[in-house]
Formats: sequence, C-alpha cells, structure tokens
Amino acid sequence: MAEIMNAVVKEKPELGAEFRQVKLPELKPEWVMVKVKACSICGTDVHIYKWDPWSDNRIGAKNLPQTLGHEVAGEVVEVGSHVSRIKVGDYISAETHIYDPSDITALVGQFHIGENMKILGVDCDGSFAEYFAVHQSVCWVNDTSIPPEFATIQEPMGNATYAVLGEDNDIAGKSMVFIGDGPIALFGIGVARACGAANIFVVGLSEYGLQIAKKMGADHILYADGRDGKDLQKRVEYIKDNTYGAGADIVLDMVGALPAIQEGFKYLRKGGRFTAFGIAPKDEVPIDYNNSIVFKGAQIHGINGRKIFDTWYRVRNLLTMKRVDVAPVITHLFELKDFKKGFDLLLAEPRLCSKIVLFPDTEEFQKAVKRLEERIK
Amino acid sequence: MAEIMNAVVKEKPELGAEFRQVKLPELKPEWVMVKVKACSICGTDVHIYKWDPWSDNRIGAKNLPQTLGHEVAGEVVEVGSHVSRIKVGDYISAETHIYDPSDITALVGQFHIGENMKILGVDCDGSFAEYFAVHQSVCWVNDTSIPPEFATIQEPMGNATYAVLGEDNDIAGKSMVFIGDGPIALFGIGVARACGAANIFVVGLSEYGLQIAKKMGADHILYADGRDGKDLQKRVEYIKDNTYGAGADIVLDMVGALPAIQEGFKYLRKGGRFTAFGIAPKDEVPIDYNNSIVFKGAQIHGINGRKIFDTWYRVRNLLTMKRVDVAPVITHLFELKDFKKGFDLLLAEPRLCSKIVLFPDTEEFQKAVKRLEERIK
Amino acid sequence: MAEIMNAVVKEKPELGAEFRQVKLPELKPEWVMVKVKACSICGTDVHIYKWDPWSDNRIGAKNLPQTLGHEVAGEVVEVGSHVSRIKVGDYISAETHIYDPSDITALVGQFHIGENMKILGVDCDGSFAEYFAVHQSVCWVNDTSIPPEFATIQEPMGNATYAVLGEDNDIAGKSMVFIGDGPIALFGIGVARACGAANIFVVGLSEYGLQIAKKMGADHILYADGRDGKDLQKRVEYIKDNTYGAGADIVLDMVGALPAIQEGFKYLRKGGRFTAFGIAPKDEVPIDYNNSIVFKGAQIHGINGRKIFDTWYRVRNLLTMKRVDVAPVITHLFELKDFKKGFDLLLAEPRLCSKIVLFPDTEEFQKAVKRLEERIK
Amino acid sequence: MAEIMNAVVKEKPELGAEFRQVKLPELKPEWVMVKVKACSICGTDVHIYKWDPWSDNRIGAKNLPQTLGHEVAGEVVEVGSHVSRIKVGDYISAETHIYDPSDITALVGQFHIGENMKILGVDCDGSFAEYFAVHQSVCWVNDTSIPPEFATIQEPMGNATYAVLGEDNDIAGKSMVFIGDGPIALFGIGVARACGAANIFVVGLSEYGLQIAKKMGADHILYADGRDGKDLQKRVEYIKDNTYGAGADIVLDMVGALPAIQEGFKYLRKGGRFTAFGIAPKDEVPIDYNNSIVFKGAQIHGINGRKIFDTWYRVRNLLTMKRVDVAPVITHLFELKDFKKGFDLLLAEPRLCSKIVLFPDTEEFQKAVKRLEERIK
Repeated sequence: MAEIMNAVVKEKPELGAEFRQVKLPELKPEWVMVKVKACSICGTDVHIYKWDPWSDNRIGAKNLPQTLGHEVAGEVVEVGSHVSRIKVGDYISAETHIYDPSDITALVGQFHIGENMKILGVDCDGSFAEYFAVHQSVCWVNDTSIPPEFATIQEPMGNATYAVLGEDNDIAGKSMVFIGDGPIALFGIGVARACGAANIFVVGLSEYGLQIAKKMGADHILYADGRDGKDLQKRVEYIKDNTYGAGADIVLDMVGALPAIQEGFKYLRKGGRFTAFGIAPKDEVPIDYNNSIVFKGAQIHGINGRKIFDTWYRVRNLLTMKRVDVAPVITHLFELKDFKKGFDLLLAEPRLCSKIVLFPDTEEFQKAVKRLEERIK
Repeated sequence: MAEIMNAVVKEKPELGAEFRQVKLPELKPEWVMVKVKACSICGTDVHIYKWDPWSDNRIGAKNLPQTLGHEVAGEVVEVGSHVSRIKVGDYISAETHIYDPSDITALVGQFHIGENMKILGVDCDGSFAEYFAVHQSVCWVNDTSIPPEFATIQEPMGNATYAVLGEDNDIAGKSMVFIGDGPIALFGIGVARACGAANIFVVGLSEYGLQIAKKMGADHILYADGRDGKDLQKRVEYIKDNTYGAGADIVLDMVGALPAIQEGFKYLRKGGRFTAFGIAPKDEVPIDYNNSIVFKGAQIHGINGRKIFDTWYRVRNLLTMKRVDVAPVITHLFELKDFKKGFDLLLAEPRLCSKIVLFPDTEEFQKAVKRLEERIK
Repeated sequence: MAEIMNAVVKEKPELGAEFRQVKLPELKPEWVMVKVKACSICGTDVHIYKWDPWSDNRIGAKNLPQTLGHEVAGEVVEVGSHVSRIKVGDYISAETHIYDPSDITALVGQFHIGENMKILGVDCDGSFAEYFAVHQSVCWVNDTSIPPEFATIQEPMGNATYAVLGEDNDIAGKSMVFIGDGPIALFGIGVARACGAANIFVVGLSEYGLQIAKKMGADHILYADGRDGKDLQKRVEYIKDNTYGAGADIVLDMVGALPAIQEGFKYLRKGGRFTAFGIAPKDEVPIDYNNSIVFKGAQIHGINGRKIFDTWYRVRNLLTMKRVDVAPVITHLFELKDFKKGFDLLLAEPRLCSKIVLFPDTEEFQKAVKRLEERIK
Repeated sequence: MAEIMNAVVKEKPELGAEFRQVKLPELKPEWVMVKVKACSICGTDVHIYKWDPWSDNRIGAKNLPQTLGHEVAGEVVEVGSHVSRIKVGDYISAETHIYDPSDITALVGQFHIGENMKILGVDCDGSFAEYFAVHQSVCWVNDTSIPPEFATIQEPMGNATYAVLGEDNDIAGKSMVFIGDGPIALFGIGVARACGAANIFVVGLSEYGLQIAKKMGADHILYADGRDGKDLQKRVEYIKDNTYGAGADIVLDMVGALPAIQEGFKYLRKGGRFTAFGIAPKDEVPIDYNNSIVFKGAQIHGINGRKIFDTWYRVRNLLTMKRVDVAPVITHLFELKDFKKGFDLLLAEPRLCSKIVLFPDTEEFQKAVKRLEERIK
C-alpha cells in the first residue's frame, strides 16, 4: 500500500480547504484502514470549511491541519493487530460517534451519546481522502447491494431515521410535520413515507428542497415565509384541518431556528411528540413552556446521532429492500479533487443542491454517475 | 322509518342462513340505529353459517334466530335518548368488541379484551341487514372519503394492523414472516409494506391468496406444503439467508394450525417477536417451550381484536391517505340478498375468493362495482 | 335528601371564600350525586381563593359564585337516569379531568388531555361541600380499605405517580432528582421510593417540606438557595458524584420556577428523562435548547393530570397494599366549616403545612384524626 | 503470580467434582485475570455436578476436565495486552453470556442472546477457583460498597430482575404471581417488592423457600400441592379475589414444570404479561394456546440471561442503595475447598438451602460470615 495519499485537508483557520498529498493515517491496533469508495458532505463539514465560530471553538486552530469528512463508504484493506470483528475485504461505513464503552450511556445501551464520545472528522482526521482509519467498534458492514453513493449517506439517513422514529419507533398511521428542507429532512420524509406516516407536511423555505420533498413523499408543502399566502396562523389551521382538528401527532424540527422551534409546538396536537433535531444558532431558546410542553402533555425527544447499531440495521434494510429511494436527495456527484465545486454549491444562496457525494476514484465516480442517470430515467 | 327490514338470519342450528324480513332492531337509550351501506363476511360468519361445534358452543341453538355479521359501514339514522357522542348523519363503522367500561382491562386502557365483553353478531344481532343497532361507545366515525366497501373492512384490517404492529408498534425496517394467506394476512401484508417492514415473507397454501399477497407487497412467496421444493428446513434456511443469517425479526401466525405455529418459531430470530393471531383448531398446542420461547428470548403477543380506538385511528389514516390499497383483497361484491353466493365461494375448495362485501342497497352495490373496476384498471 | 347543603363558595373576584348554604347541585342524567366524606386543598384552590390573575383569566368573575375544590372522596347517594357504570353506595373519588370522549386524544387513549376537556372545580362547581355531582365517566371506585383522608389525595398522588413514572413507567433502579418540596413532590418521592428509584435527591427550599421528604424516602436533601454551602455548581457535582459521574437518570421539575427548570437540566445525565410538571409563572421560559435537549439526547415528558384510569389503578394498589405511606404529607385535618384555617396555613410564609384535608362531617373528621394519630405513633 | 491454583474441577462424566490444583487460566489479549473473592452455586452448576443428560449433551465428556462456576466477584490482577476498558485493581463481576459483537442481536442491542454466544463455566473454564480469566467485554465493575457475597449474586439477581421487569420495565403498582421458590424466584420477589409490585403472590412447594419469600416481601403464600387446602381452582379464585376479580397483571414461571406453566396462565388476567423463565424438563410443552395466549391477549416474555448492562446497572443501584436486602436468600457460606457441602445441601431432599456462596480465601470467608451474622441480628 502506498504511504502517501490525496486528501481534503483543512489547513488554516479560515475559509477553505486544500486537496493535497498527506501521509496515510496511522493504523492503531483496534483500528481498520479503509479505501474510500465514496464520501459525502455534511453540514458539519460546511461549518469547518467556513471555519465559523463553532469550528474555532470545537476544533481549534491548534489542531489543524486535519482531514475533513465523516460520511463514507469503503473497503477495508488492512486491520490492526487487535481487530477481530472486521476483516479485510469488508465493505463498510462508519458510525461517526466513536463511543467510550465505559460511559454509563454505553453501559445502558445508549451508545450514541456519552460523556467521552469522539466525533469522526471533528476530533480526529476524517474520510475525505483515499484512505481513512477508524476504530473497529464503529464499523458497520454494508450490504453489498447498496452502491457507494447510497452507502455513504447511511449516516445522515440514520440521523433522519432516528429523528423520524424517535425513541419508541412508533409512527405507523400517524401524521407528521417536518420543519426544514435540508438533506436530513428530505431523507426523513422518505423514511416517514416508507414507514407509514399517514399524513406528511413539510414546512420549508427553499423551492429546490421542497420539490425534492414532494418526490420523497410529502403530502403537503407549506412555506415558512408565508409566500403562498399562509401565515403561521393559517398554517396551523391548515394542519389542523388536515388532522381532524387535532394538530399533528408528531412534529420534527430539523432546522433549529427560533421561529421553527416555536411554531413547531403550535403544529403539535395535545399528547404529541416533538423531535428536537436542529441545532439552534444561539443555545438559549425561549419556549412557551406551559402551553407547548406541560398543558400539552407533549413528549420531546432530543435527537443526536443515531442508535448504534439499531438505526443502522433499519436503514440498511430500508435501502436494501428499496423501501426508500434516496436518489432524489443526492443531487450532485463529484470527484474528490473537485470537492470545491461541492462546497461552492453548498455556500451559494439560494442553495441549489442537497446531498453531494465525492469519489476519490475516477472509475467509481463514473459508475455512480451512470447508476444515478439510470435511476432518474 | 320502516318497521320491517331484510336481513340475513341464522334460523336453525344447521348449515345455512335465510334472507328474510325481520323487525328492525330495538333502539336502546345508549344505542344508535344505522342504515347499512356495506357489510363484509368474516371467518366467524362462516363458522356460524356452517354451525360448527364452535358456533354451537359459543352461541347455542337456543339463541337463534340471530342476524349474522359484524363488519359494517353505514349511516346513523336515529340515536337513542342517551346518546351524546354520535349524531344522526354520521358515517360510521362499528368496533365489534362491545366492552364493559368497568372491566379492569377497560380501566387500564385495554378496551379490546375484557371479562364482560360482548361480540357484535355473536352475542347479539349483527349487521347483515338493512339496519342494525349498536352501543354508541363502539361507533367509529369514518372519514367520508373512504367508500363503504373499504370502510366495512376496517374491522378486519384493524385486526391485521394490530397483529402487524403488535403491542409496541415497532416494525420500521424489520423483517416479517406471515404464515397464512387469508384476508387478514393479506391486509396485514399491505399494512406491513406501508409501515416499513423491510423484508416480507409469506408462507401459504393457496395460490389464489398468494398472488394477492404479492400485490399487497410481499417480497417472498413460500409454500407451506413445500410444493416449490422447499421443505420446512429449506424454508428456514431461505429466510435466514435473506435475513443475514438471523431469522426474521417478527413472525405472525395468522392460521392457528399446529404446524404453522410450530414452524413459525423456527423462522423467528433470537429476541424476535411472535404474533399469535390464528385460533388453533384444538386449544392445546404442543410448543417447544425451551427453544422457541425461553432460550430464544422471544416475545409473544396474543392478538385479539384491535385497540379501541388507537388501531382504528391508524387504519383510518392509512386508508384516507392511500398508504395501503386494499382493493386486491376485496375480490367479490354482492347484493345482500345474494349473500349465499358469498358463502358458497368461502366454502368451496380450493377457495377462490378473499374478502367479500355485501350491499343491502342495489345502487350502493352498483357504485361500488364501478369504483373497484376503475381501481383495478 | 335535603335540598340545601353547606359549601365553600367563591363569591366575589377577590381574596377569600364563604362557607354558606347553597342548593344541592343538579343531577344530570349521566351524573352521580356524591356525599362528601373528605376533600383536600390543591394549589389550584389556593389560586382561586386568592383570585390571582390566573383565576381571573381562567374562571372569570362572571362565573361566580362557584363551589371550590376537586380532590375528594365520598359515597354515591343517587345516580342520574342514564348512569350504568356506578351505583348508589359506591365509595368513589373523582378524576378531575372531565374528558370529551370524541377528542382525538380520548380516541387514542390519552383521556387526560384533550381540546374539549373540562376541569372539576374550575369549569364547574367543585367538591368542597356536603354533596357534589359529577359525570359517571370520571368516577373511580375506591377500595374500601382506604380511609377517606387518603382516598381524597389519590388525585394529587396520581399527578405525582404519573410525573414519577412518566410515559414509560420505567424507573426501577434509576436515580431521580425532585426539584420542589410541595405536596405533589412529596407524594412523588414516596411513590419513587416504593417503585424502586434507587437514588433519590430532592432540591427544595422549605425545611418543613424537606423534613417530610426525608420521611417519604429521599436519600439526599439539597437546598435550592445553597444555604448548606452547595451552590448550583456544587449541587451538580454532588449529584454526579452520587451517580457514578453521569448525572441523574430522571429529573422532575415540580416547581415551574425559571431557575428550577434550568438547573434541572444540569442535573440530568445524557440520554435521561426530564419531567415537566411545574407551571412556570410566565409562559415563556428560556431553555438551553442545544445542550439541555439536543446534544443531551434528553427526553422531556410534559405531565398534566394523570392517566385515566391506568394511574388510578396503580395508585389504588400502592395505597391498598401499603407500599406508600402518605400520612407524613397529610399535615392537617379540619372540619369543612374551618376551611379558612387551611387556606391561612397555605398562604402563610414560611408555609408550615403540606396537604390539608377537610371533612364536612364532624364524626368523619374525628375518626380521621384518630387514625392519623395512631399512624404517627 | 503463582502458576498453580486450587479449583473445583469437573473431571469425569459422572456425579461429583474435585478440588485440586490446576494451572492458572491463559490470559488472552482481550481477557482479564481475576482473583476470586467470592463465587456462588447456580442450578446450572448442580446440573453439571450431577452430570445429567443436559450436561452430557451441552458440554460433552470430551471437553472435561473443566472448572465449574460462573457467579463470581473478584479483583482484576492482570489484564491482557489489548484490554482497555478494565484495569488492574478493578473489583468486578462477570456477565456470563459472552456475546459475539457481530451477532445481529448484539448489533441491535440484545447482547444477552445471540447465535454465537458462549456461556462462562459451560463453554469454557469457570470461576470456582482462586483465579479465573474472562473477556473484558463482559466485565462489570462493581460498586466497592457491595460485599463479595452480594456482588457474586448479581448475576442470578440480574436474571431475577430481568424476569421481573420484563422487556418494558413496567411493574409499578401491578400485581404479580411468582411460581417457584428457588433462589432466583426469591431474589425476584425482593426486586418486585422494591420496585413497586403492589400485590405479590408466591406459589411454591418448599416451606423453607416460602419462608424466605415472606422475608423478601411476598404478600401471599400459596402451596402448589394444595396442602393448605387450596387446589388449583381455589388458588385461581384466591388470586382473583385479591385482584378485584381480574387475575394478576404479571405472572412469572420460575420453575419450568408442566403444571407450573399451565397454571401460570390461569392466574394471569386478560391482557397481562407472562414471564417464561423456567426451563421445562421436556422441551415440548402443551399450552392452551387459544385461551392462554390469543383470547387472553397475553404477552409472553421469554427471559434468558439479563440485559447487558442495563440490568446490571439497575441491580447495582438497588443493592448499593439498599433497596433490596438479599441476605435472607444467602443461606450458606463455605470455603471453596468445602464446596461439596454446598452441593450436598443442594442435592438433598427436602432442600434446606437457597443461595450458597463459596470463598477461595479463608479470611474473606470469615469476614463474610461476620457481615451476614450482623445483618441477620
């Protein structure tokens, strides 16, 4: 194996990143080395690319340079000396929440959150490279029928699936409002539709995103800025009119904006479930505690990551059995060396892209392009 | 309102029933009078029609004559003096488990089973008639967009939905084996497919039923008699091969036959859920208790009826939002006066029918025929 | 039966209430007439007694006069013409959430919250009287072994039980923090202790309440004002030190004060459950949404009322089988005519009382005094 | 560290075992070496000691000699080269279900059952020795406040806790019948009492065991042989009389005998939960499938092992916070070299012992004797 590879590296605490040669990552005893087939750009990568205050605070200039990325699919080409669960040749994706098995959360089965958890591509080098190395404990062996451009998005689709299913996985026949039209909301709509949510509303801002929402199975499109003539009060009425007067059984905030959170509770019926997924730009959010939570008898599920590996198991099955077609969300494919095209699209206003997949290998890239073209036909 | 109406009446403790004029049912203070738009034939009706030992024991000759039937949709034309929840003009179906609100099961929210529960069409006159009367507490107000031939099958579809979703409603992304190809199994396959079961096997005997199973969304068809060359051992291997070696997450026995129950546990993975829905011909069933239940860490859910009204709520939403198309299961429509054609089909071997819907009113019948023809096109 | 009775009546929109003769309440067809054996004072009664802005807004001067009270136990002396579930002689308490059975929440089994719900003693005359009338649907038949001074507090103990058990009833072996030392927190501590919460912290202000908390089973007493030298940071550390570094599995805010809610989330471990029970003095509460909910993977359960009748069933059993001794919380007994003594105690600062029970009948009062004296020995 | 140690070794496929010197177990890279402070005798050990058909089939003569035992507490004295989660000096107990992390059950969080699971002391050398070695993944770090004679019984108490709490951990305020009076049933009664089961019946045969059941918190003692004049029918009536006519919410079969299983379903109320814990002497058990499961709407939970480590977490907390006092169940302490006294007691009829704890070290033994004497005072 070569000792040098190409990678997308965050060099300096400022906008941008470089495609350049770096040394292959070190293979620790419990880690595996993976040849990347496809990787995809997450919102977190955009934060780091921009080097916004969150990045500066969370990663810090002193830890640069660092390889970007964490959504990935690839083939294991070498395993560390203590690796037993994974073998060379396995086609894997990586759970990005690298848990500490001694955390109490891990002991009681909540592996995805924990005091001592590390995040791939944030707390260590990531996967936007020809190779990346990762602890065996977070490897998920993919079904070989899932092409790399789909296998790489299992991580964000897992976010979406956990957000949609919540802690109790109980959505069959229930009404659901998605606030947001980004890729995770869009994957979520596909999952909700595939899993029996029986009336799906999406409230968004981007026409581009909302058109994909329709393809993914949303029944009703609403505009958060009221440009269709429906202000908040009318949107609340519209949702009640379509839920026998009650409001939605489940509301998911996938945005984190203050008005999104606040209006989300207005869409929710008494005794309903609110998924808190979006990160608020400012930590402190004023909530109508009495009416939104206490008197409403609401349940709120804070969602971070996805269940390890219960969510992966479901996502794998939904993809393998073609219950959800994620192709409409995957709007752009690029070779890894052209990663800047992807970030440019993601930084443009209005944003005319959703999930963007990158390929270190030209041949893999061309095969993926062909597959998606055939799907869309 | 007329005082005389036509009804399908079980007259004598022997095979058959009569279409004849009877007095309208009495309207008790808490009951509502319903003009029947559509009613459908359940397996229980077939038992009573045949007057098999179960019927003789459960109903008894001394309680005849009695009007058959309990699956129904119709319009409320009169309400008793103490009725508050339902009003004239409501388009309703009836939950057939008439619960006693003082039963402990009812107090803790399990209305569908209870020591003092009565069954519509078994413990009292049923709905195969121009009118029927029922306690307001079990009326479910239908969505008016659901045509009568679909509204009447919400009761058995509710059985199917409860059987599929189990106590925990957790099926998204899970694999599922249905044993049986009768109407409730077929509705169940449709519900499972709509609600995200990600690999659906059906093991049946009737080619007629299994072809409908395919239309409802089954991924794999297996023959309980091994006529495709797959004996039990091979069917177990086939299911394991298609579930990453584990066996199915969920197995539903919809038949009750001894071999069905026993082989069901062989299809089940460790830690999986087994739905016990089918009634065994003989109460006592030998089960490999140690390996099927204890060492397997299995959960068994005995399913009788459907949750009142949680299941109805979900069924209504799945139908209204067209998540499940039940048309393939509804194989025959007849006018009520031709009910014998329905029972003849149900008694024939091989059985070349599935759910059969009856209409007291000729015009309703003709409209339904037209609607189904259009759907099938 | 007499036509005139004594009752505690809110006459005017100002502080106070009157003990005076009023006509017996009307017995509607589905209602029952109850001779009150014991009734008890809730915080809501104190709001109405004071006629604070909440009362003025919620009840309104135009609806006065109105009889106070809703916590109650008594004997059914007459039933309306349409009553079937309850009979004369039944010893009952009343669920105070008078639900509309047509609400979607009621249809799906969440009877305790609903768009059209009415509250006993708020939306209609209450139970601080010799007799009160109530819809049969909210009557709970008491176990006759429970004395009236305990039977009357099943309603607030039900609040406490639902708050403690949450939606999932899963507390066995878990650590729990109660914020608050009022009667419902104190009942909750007793229930938590009886139901296996394995480390119970209480954070309160009132020495009087905290001493009762200890009797009810709290393992650790903390002072919300830091008067024991533990400021918020130290309290967080103390709780982590006693939960293997993680924080508490479950935190219950029983107060509603802004600092209580905010510090509650700091006591909670990742992936824990927060019960939102207390009503905030101002609806809008600023919450550290990102860190308290999303990144924490927290579940929040808004609790209003108690499950009908699942919670009653559990409370009845816990009391009958003497799993919880509620005597320490019941600090004062008065005859109904002396109700002002009770309100005076509840309005005093510092408050030197907890739950106060009133008796319309002198003999019942004397028997209760004797029973409690014997218990305390 | 010495290379030779004392151990209780099963030498030959016949009754008995030997206390003799063996080599210390091999320390594999992911394993830890534990100096045993206390170990305790399980029913499985008795099977192996007797070398009954189960042992011959499950272990096989060809795998002898093998060290007995799996319930244990001790101190880690050395760790393998790849061990990261456990360190020298840790005071641990061992989960005996050594799971394969690649099993689907492990991936979805059901670590305690799996196709490729190994059992400590059955599939490899056990813990009745001065030292034993075990994979780090199944080590549970004990609270140091728990003495060794209690720490060693966390494994069977974990069985009991999982059996009692079931899959949903929902027992607060519910009625519960235990069938059986062996140590796990007795631990279970203690856990049930501590966790809010509000009416606890035990049906047993051994006066010795039933007297301990009373100490552990059983409310009602019934005799499975009817020697108190209550035959099965009367026991059913007795339980119904004490559960408001319904039958018990939860029934646990801890025996596995045919009549125990069959009568267990008769004690269960409609919609209740049946825990299948006991192993039947013959795999095939005739069950009244229709009436016990389907029409009853029963849920059956097959329980094998305990949740890893959710159950351990709860057990640890219940013990540390003294919610359950297990001392009455621990009837005998012996030095390890006197292990035969323990097996003799366990093989005697009638059996006049419950849980028996063994100590390799004389000083530990003496300290434990003293502690238990003080407790019993």
